[in-house]
Amino acid sequence: MADRGFGHSHSIPVNSGTNEVEGNFSLEEDEARQNGDGPNVVLGLDGGTTSTVCVCLPLMADPNDLPDPLPLLARAVSGCSNYNSVGENAAKETLEQVITEALTKSGSNWSAVRAVCLGVSGVNHPTDQEKILKWLRDIFPSHVKVYVQNDAVAALASGTMGKLHGCVLVAGTGSIAYGFSEDGKEARAAGGGPILGDWGSGYGIAAQALTAVIRANDGRGSQTMLTSRILKALGLSSPDELIGWTYEDRSWARIAALVPEVVSCAEAGDQIAHNILTEAVKELALSVKAVVERLRLCGEDSTGSFPVVMVGGVLETKRAWDIGNEVVIYIKKFFPNAQPIRPKVEPAVGAALLAFNFLMKESEVNKHS
Amino acid sequence: MADRGFGHSHSIPVNSGTNEVEGNFSLEEDEARQNGDGPNVVLGLDGGTTSTVCVCLPLMADPNDLPDPLPLLARAVSGCSNYNSVGENAAKETLEQVITEALTKSGSNWSAVRAVCLGVSGVNHPTDQEKILKWLRDIFPSHVKVYVQNDAVAALASGTMGKLHGCVLVAGTGSIAYGFSEDGKEARAAGGGPILGDWGSGYGIAAQALTAVIRANDGRGSQTMLTSRILKALGLSSPDELIGWTYEDRSWARIAALVPEVVSCAEAGDQIAHNILTEAVKELALSVKAVVERLRLCGEDSTGSFPVVMVGGVLETKRAWDIGNEVVIYIKKFFPNAQPIRPKVEPAVGAALLAFNFLMKESEVNKHS
Repeated sequence: MADRGFGHSHSIPVNSGTNEVEGNFSLEEDEARQNGDGPNVVLGLDGGTTSTVCVCLPLMADPNDLPDPLPLLARAVSGCSNYNSVGENAAKETLEQVITEALTKSGSNWSAVRAVCLGVSGVNHPTDQEKILKWLRDIFPSHVKVYVQNDAVAALASGTMGKLHGCVLVAGTGSIAYGFSEDGKEARAAGGGPILGDWGSGYGIAAQALTAVIRANDGRGSQTMLTSRILKALGLSSPDELIGWTYEDRSWARIAALVPEVVSCAEAGDQIAHNILTEAVKELALSVKAVVERLRLCGEDSTGSFPVVMVGGVLETKRAWDIGNEVVIYIKKFFPNAQPIRPKVEPAVGAALLAFNFLMKESEVNKHS
Repeated sequence: MADRGFGHSHSIPVNSGTNEVEGNFSLEEDEARQNGDGPNVVLGLDGGTTSTVCVCLPLMADPNDLPDPLPLLARAVSGCSNYNSVGENAAKETLEQVITEALTKSGSNWSAVRAVCLGVSGVNHPTDQEKILKWLRDIFPSHVKVYVQNDAVAALASGTMGKLHGCVLVAGTGSIAYGFSEDGKEARAAGGGPILGDWGSGYGIAAQALTAVIRANDGRGSQTMLTSRILKALGLSSPDELIGWTYEDRSWARIAALVPEVVSCAEAGDQIAHNILTEAVKELALSVKAVVERLRLCGEDSTGSFPVVMVGGVLETKRAWDIGNEVVIYIKKFFPNAQPIRPKVEPAVGAALLAFNFLMKESEVNKHS
């Protein structure tokens, strides 16, 4: 998910230009390759609430034997494509724009596209999925395969290199746990946004820290180092001013950007900050536990091995108080053989690998039908 | 506060028309009474996030000997005047409109106005107060006394008939505790809005109930009767649809309107709903405790007597599971002689009485200076 960090951009190596990849194209729909300017491609899109990333990969021979590094043809970044945030028209326009840019950068064109997978936040229900599928069908010719997934699914695929198995935990501005069993069942936990209690998310952590400042100020809570740290970070002179500050702009990412201040206070020994982070760790681990148990990823006796892909700014702090590490320790209490994975590629690449895998599977099905 | 309920309107008796009140006007600025069409008046305004109420009272002789019932000249209602919600221009226009309507209904006019007090949500800092004072100074001629208070202060005055002493607890869509000591010190607790953890508010209660539904659905929490009650109330068929529902419209009052469903579930024995309400009671009582202790309203040994004015839809449920009663029981554990008051008049009348009292005090000061 493009909005999983705290304003940090991803530094993914991109082989821009016109890499010529001689794929071993075993697909029967090869006639769809309408011109010889470049290889057939798949597109992966990661549509978040702050930005949308599109990557372009050449069609490769075997999804189980991927080259390392992946031969990325191009990467493009645009604005928000979450229709809950910006409305349908703006979301759709953003998608068209970022796809066009990625194709141009890759030296490819619309007719070379074989499949597209969009991982997007705000897909919480089949009707959401259908709506966005329709946008993609409007953009592409009918022979192009289009897929829409919750952005957490693309994040999972970024850790498993396209395989839909295991559980992903995303904790950035928001948080969600999402999993797939080997027989294709899926389950999710959390991911409802701020109103629906995602307390392990960056927003959740920071909102609790702001609340602790207010409580310390009005006499309901103990004094905390969070007061001076947060006021300094926001350039405010008194806790009373926090109320106006929260009303000024209702963007959740702006609140979540305070997570590093909370981590600093916990590292400096502030008990309230420490408790907030400890609760967040528990919440995040419990959302993974709920998914793993529903899908029985851990086997009957909880000792089975399965991937847990860890994604998002909250889990990537790399600080002395390391939320991600603490979450892994907590998860391992329940499932000692859970295999934590920190993805080496971004979710948009996960989405592209999903597009590739889905396409290969459909081609297999067609071959045998 | 006009937005303290769950969409119920107030049934305050209004003597509309042109009551002739023969006041014993002891004020030296009597020359300000520029025409003889009616009595000099004071205006009280209650500006909330859902509506703004203006009432018109005649100047009376003695703030310590008020007639019962009060001789209200008129009452008018208009839209939102919280500039955090609608912006400054719209808020200011709403105020002008509702004042004009109240004066017209009372058969009075702008030149009869001696003092105006506006109790308004969103006044959290002296700069907020100054901004709104300036709007009133723009609207009225310079000899009219204008006062701006947090809406909780008007609510307190509605219970104490204009006297600023004691603590008010407001729990509607939002929640706040606000108090004054007899020597004029003031203090507040909570009132920061949803992001800053007002968990005893209607919004807080309902958001926790929605979260409980999501947690029961995804496996993080126990099953609860809240699921079927809330889905039915919202016309939704599955908990997954709640996420889209919360994103559709970010108004907090819409969330808070679910409080009666939570109360029903608690009454029917649902443990999760019961726990949510019990936590809300504790939060509300703790906000009163924080104010009372900071102002030492309870004396040195916590046995002093002081008024606790209880206002807002959350405290007025009149149900078997009575949040207001439970809050009183909790407060009395700390302060056995706290005197709960349920106001008989609305906060706009409280604001008018404040305007009257402030005016009389200024007149006293001028007389002796």
